Amino acid sequence: MSVYTTVSDDMMQSWLSRYALGQLVELKGIAAGVTNTNYFVTTTHGRYVLTIFETLKLQELPYYLTLMSHLARHGVACPAPVADNTDQFASLLAGKPACLVSCLSGADISQPSAIQCRAVGEMLAQMHVASATFPRKMKNPRGPRWWSETASAMYGFMDEADAASLRQEIQFQDQHRFDHLPSGVIHADLFKDNVLMDGDKIAGFIDFYYACNDILLYDVAIAFNDWTRLEDGSISPERATAFLAGYQSVRALTAEEVRAWPVMLRAAALRFWTSRLLDLYQPMAGELTYTKDPKVFQRLVEAHRQRSDFWL
Amino acid sequence: MSVYTTVSDDMMQSWLSRYALGQLVELKGIAAGVTNTNYFVTTTHGRYVLTIFETLKLQELPYYLTLMSHLARHGVACPAPVADNTDQFASLLAGKPACLVSCLSGADISQPSAIQCRAVGEMLAQMHVASATFPRKMKNPRGPRWWSETASAMYGFMDEADAASLRQEIQFQDQHRFDHLPSGVIHADLFKDNVLMDGDKIAGFIDFYYACNDILLYDVAIAFNDWTRLEDGSISPERATAFLAGYQSVRALTAEEVRAWPVMLRAAALRFWTSRLLDLYQPMAGELTYTKDPKVFQRLVEAHRQRSDFWL
Repeated sequence: MSVYTTVSDDMMQSWLSRYALGQLVELKGIAAGVTNTNYFVTTTHGRYVLTIFETLKLQELPYYLTLMSHLARHGVACPAPVADNTDQFASLLAGKPACLVSCLSGADISQPSAIQCRAVGEMLAQMHVASATFPRKMKNPRGPRWWSETASAMYGFMDEADAASLRQEIQFQDQHRFDHLPSGVIHADLFKDNVLMDGDKIAGFIDFYYACNDILLYDVAIAFNDWTRLEDGSISPERATAFLAGYQSVRALTAEEVRAWPVMLRAAALRFWTSRLLDLYQPMAGELTYTKDPKVFQRLVEAHRQRSDFWL
Repeated sequence: MSVYTTVSDDMMQSWLSRYALGQLVELKGIAAGVTNTNYFVTTTHGRYVLTIFETLKLQELPYYLTLMSHLARHGVACPAPVADNTDQFASLLAGKPACLVSCLSGADISQPSAIQCRAVGEMLAQMHVASATFPRKMKNPRGPRWWSETASAMYGFMDEADAASLRQEIQFQDQHRFDHLPSGVIHADLFKDNVLMDGDKIAGFIDFYYACNDILLYDVAIAFNDWTRLEDGSISPERATAFLAGYQSVRALTAEEVRAWPVMLRAAALRFWTSRLLDLYQPMAGELTYTKDPKVFQRLVEAHRQRSDFWL
């Protein structure tokens, strides 16, 4: 359940007067999402999603919300934030930053087909191309430096073999730099549960609150590692080739990106191995997280090490 | 029929590569509209409307398209223009300015109910409020000076009694100034055929190509004169009170606006009386217009002169 902050109809109706969205018809909590409070808000004009931010500050929101607005304006499937009468996308509600975005159809899926993987790859490339004109910048707080520092704090909690494997990967990645590869705005968390599908169409990418400026290929690898992985942990060759073909139908990878791909796949898996270790061994105080298994990404790193074929 | 410029699938597919909208699935001419060429464009991502501008120049479009984008971003029901990969809403197609906008559901209606009139009044006020933060400006090319000059050129074509009535109205309006009333962005042509309804909901205001900065009450009067008028030319009191109640549920008219209302209703009718006379007696060379009867607005001006009750 993810309604941490309760909003009454009266509070909502009063806050809605900031918007050109008519009168409140229904307000209904959404039991999904981990970090923020979400409601469906139905007004006389239509249906929207209210997000109340439980950790992000009001001044941190413009990057994410103007990015989503920019992408929606370019036809990239994602929720479009609604601006209020002062032309802001967010303001305080119940003392916390809050915004309204358009309500998308569709639902997330756990077993994507190759066709769906192709559609996700294609839309991700569209997102990368469309955000080239987005003017704001945000550093990736979870880059190589963060992995290294976080891993150092984790070795003590891990059994010896796992720690050795993690140390090996950190050292391996330290020997590779990606700064020469094309960079731009990345979603940075485009897992299956952050994409709403409507049949074979992308209804929308959601949850842009890890978005930042970084290497585009890193974003491709993060999404690829989740979308093409089967339940047994192996990569589906059908999904893999479809995902990459979809991406390259819009933006062909450069020769340097193709060369970096095997290392990048490991880097993308390492990032989630590390963060899941952190969530497991040093959970944030008071944060409700469904702790996810770090082993999934450890095994993926180790499997990527053994591969000779990378579907490119 | 309003496909003046023919676009082939190949031309469209090539032009679409400027956008993050996927591949062309279907291209279909739209047999509505008088001035521009319109197509439904279905892509792998969704459905859009292509407009090819037959008279407006590329450099004239940013006011209208950024206005529509601003309004859509604020939740005002209207088509949202899609930006291309250079962040522009319009570029040349078949040598003419062209844009893509989101495709709305709904259809225009000829006999609105009081509930629908209320919804239109409400959304018009939302548009007026939301556009207060719109930074661009456009003078109204069809203001009082235009009426006077156009009327002067029309008297010679008209029979004596009609010319006398027009002259009387021009002189009457000359004695009234509205500069002290609230101003902002107005649609300026919100007739029934420029609103798509989806049941009792506004699916969208369309055809913003007369939009400009002018007196808000003038916009209210233009829409009121069309939406509340019955087929016999009389004003429906039910529609009239509903329309004005809807408007005032969002933006209450000021005391000065209430005082100006009877004169403004005549001004709004005069504007279309005059333009219809011009279309009838001096049609633009080569322009395909369905010539509409100027008498409708002459009778409306004359009826407004006789009224004592103005539904406010």
